[in-house]
Amino acid sequence: MNLVKTMENKTNEETQALDIINCLNGDSEKLVTQFGASRMNTLTETPDHPFFKNGLLYSHRDFDKFYTRLMNGEKSAIVSGLNPSSVNFHIGHMAVMEMNLFLQKKYGLDIFIPLSDDESYVAMKIKDQEEGLKNALLIAKSIIAYGFDPAKTHVVIDQVYTNIYNLAFKVARGINMSTINATYNYQNENSTGLFFYPAVQAAHILLPEVLGMRNVIVPISADEDSHIRISRDVAEKYGFDKCAVLHSRFLPGLDGKKMSKSKGNGIFLHETEKEIRKKINQSFSGGRKTIEEHKKYGGIPEADVAYNYLKYYFLRLEEADQLYNEYKAGKILSGEMKKMFADKLVPFVTKFQERYNNVTAEQIAKIIMTNGSTDMEAIIKKLGVA
Amino acid sequence: MNLVKTMENKTNEETQALDIINCLNGDSEKLVTQFGASRMNTLTETPDHPFFKNGLLYSHRDFDKFYTRLMNGEKSAIVSGLNPSSVNFHIGHMAVMEMNLFLQKKYGLDIFIPLSDDESYVAMKIKDQEEGLKNALLIAKSIIAYGFDPAKTHVVIDQVYTNIYNLAFKVARGINMSTINATYNYQNENSTGLFFYPAVQAAHILLPEVLGMRNVIVPISADEDSHIRISRDVAEKYGFDKCAVLHSRFLPGLDGKKMSKSKGNGIFLHETEKEIRKKINQSFSGGRKTIEEHKKYGGIPEADVAYNYLKYYFLRLEEADQLYNEYKAGKILSGEMKKMFADKLVPFVTKFQERYNNVTAEQIAKIIMTNGSTDMEAIIKKLGVA
Repeated sequence: MNLVKTMENKTNEETQALDIINCLNGDSEKLVTQFGASRMNTLTETPDHPFFKNGLLYSHRDFDKFYTRLMNGEKSAIVSGLNPSSVNFHIGHMAVMEMNLFLQKKYGLDIFIPLSDDESYVAMKIKDQEEGLKNALLIAKSIIAYGFDPAKTHVVIDQVYTNIYNLAFKVARGINMSTINATYNYQNENSTGLFFYPAVQAAHILLPEVLGMRNVIVPISADEDSHIRISRDVAEKYGFDKCAVLHSRFLPGLDGKKMSKSKGNGIFLHETEKEIRKKINQSFSGGRKTIEEHKKYGGIPEADVAYNYLKYYFLRLEEADQLYNEYKAGKILSGEMKKMFADKLVPFVTKFQERYNNVTAEQIAKIIMTNGSTDMEAIIKKLGVA
Repeated sequence: MNLVKTMENKTNEETQALDIINCLNGDSEKLVTQFGASRMNTLTETPDHPFFKNGLLYSHRDFDKFYTRLMNGEKSAIVSGLNPSSVNFHIGHMAVMEMNLFLQKKYGLDIFIPLSDDESYVAMKIKDQEEGLKNALLIAKSIIAYGFDPAKTHVVIDQVYTNIYNLAFKVARGINMSTINATYNYQNENSTGLFFYPAVQAAHILLPEVLGMRNVIVPISADEDSHIRISRDVAEKYGFDKCAVLHSRFLPGLDGKKMSKSKGNGIFLHETEKEIRKKINQSFSGGRKTIEEHKKYGGIPEADVAYNYLKYYFLRLEEADQLYNEYKAGKILSGEMKKMFADKLVPFVTKFQERYNNVTAEQIAKIIMTNGSTDMEAIIKKLGVA
């Protein structure tokens, strides 16, 4: 990447390319240099999935150990949480969700999906606990639509599976306030529940071990690593194994900046084909100002949102390399690049939506963990979730 | 009480009498002068029980409102918690327990007894969560033996009735870290669970309201008031009524000093008659050095542990006054006073122990609140509780 080396002479397009590169890297490098994560190239063996080769996975913790134990037939599980402060999956979620789905399908793994309705509530992200419950159930519906195996998928909603708090208290004894304050920037005016929540999160990660699946992998965005460190630090003290972690890059929003709900720069899996194509057409590209210039100087694939999604989500390595070279040579126009992205994303989204519309209350109820006596199907119907 | 006025000329006995008086008052006066509690004599109507007249109850919050609503037939309940860091009831517990039992019997009230096994655990008072569970179940056994109506008694063990944490999180949103730090002296090396526990305690107090009993009385020792203030402060914000509070004095240990487990200066309800009589005989008295002096100068009832227990727990007002005068006149010796106390306490303890030995696992299981699916009877038997 010579863009970084020629900063003084760089064009506007190149400046924006750097923005995207910064977004893609985010805190990832810091995890390796400051927080003890390992680079992916330290792994001698990896599963057969493009994410392990194309750079979407930036680093890991103990993935080698996890993979060896998995290959040795140990009972293994995935933990992958979501925050029910909002409901809809967006294309940013796909990095982790595609990895989860691959691991489940390839190795038959159970997946635990904690939905932190309690955190959403005490962090003032939602109005009340009922909103958290409804959001969580809608996410569960999306999880089924995404293609996870209902028989091996366990959604933990804290206000439903309240037994999680026993495990949270168990490990909370080893999580003191210094650790919380060193990890989070919570303030005195924040709820005491927010300060306690990291213990609940540790419990989420340790839950499969309580149920006999001691080899656990947690695929996350690189920016979520601090949460996992607390769990890893406390695990062994209470008789648990440390979970392994895969860190994926944080893909940019449509404007090339960090994706965020407030900026409205994401694509949601519930949007129509028309909306999606329109958004992609308006997305930030690495193309030149005119077709002539583009053909003459070539595009900048690094700065092209559509190219990045194609590269990281949809193409094999050699396909991505070829596309990179053709774009850089000006042989492919940015409109064509956008169409390629849309043509990959739209069928994916259409299939997701078809499944989503056919999910039943019974199916959702089946994947929600309860203390044993809650009639989830009735609640799902009452809240109009399915 | 002229002892206070004559400090300069006071005898050793009188100095020790002041110790006992200080112990009896403890933080009680501060509750009235600094923390908004009301003196008992502000109540125009009180239930027909000696504690309301003999000074054992020092102050209250909103007891007048509670009593009016109770008299108007509103659904009412008692909340009275215990810490399962230890198992055995001692004579100090009787102040609150006798009041609870009176209120339940007289008005047919439901009583909720939260046992904070989670707090015991994160405060490092017990070895592990199982010890907390076992202790809590043994306390539940004692509660049945004490005479509470099993049909109207609900023991909340946090690790069993984990649904309590939903309510804790609900109100935790309104309990910020400034409030925790202003109320408790927790340190950075303490568990984050300890900082969160006040929200769980607030949930304990608000639980009857969730179940439709909105008129709640919490009888406590004066030194526990700060916990209740957090619950009262947050209640109305989340649609609850404020609980009413009765503050009882903290009775002294056998040596006339504040009762504490480490000092071993209490009498436990599980001790034998022989042990109890021996302890009482060795207790601090307000008698003089010799019988002659005692007859000449009179005893000091204020400084007499046995007299204080007789006065506060066992005698009607006029009986206590008569005893006071006779002791002060030297007509009753301290050995006689001790025997009177033992003769009251021993039958009480004997009856308690008889009942305790006949409590069954089924009876205990019946009063433990669960999320709906826990086989408590099996757990009680497995832990050897009954």
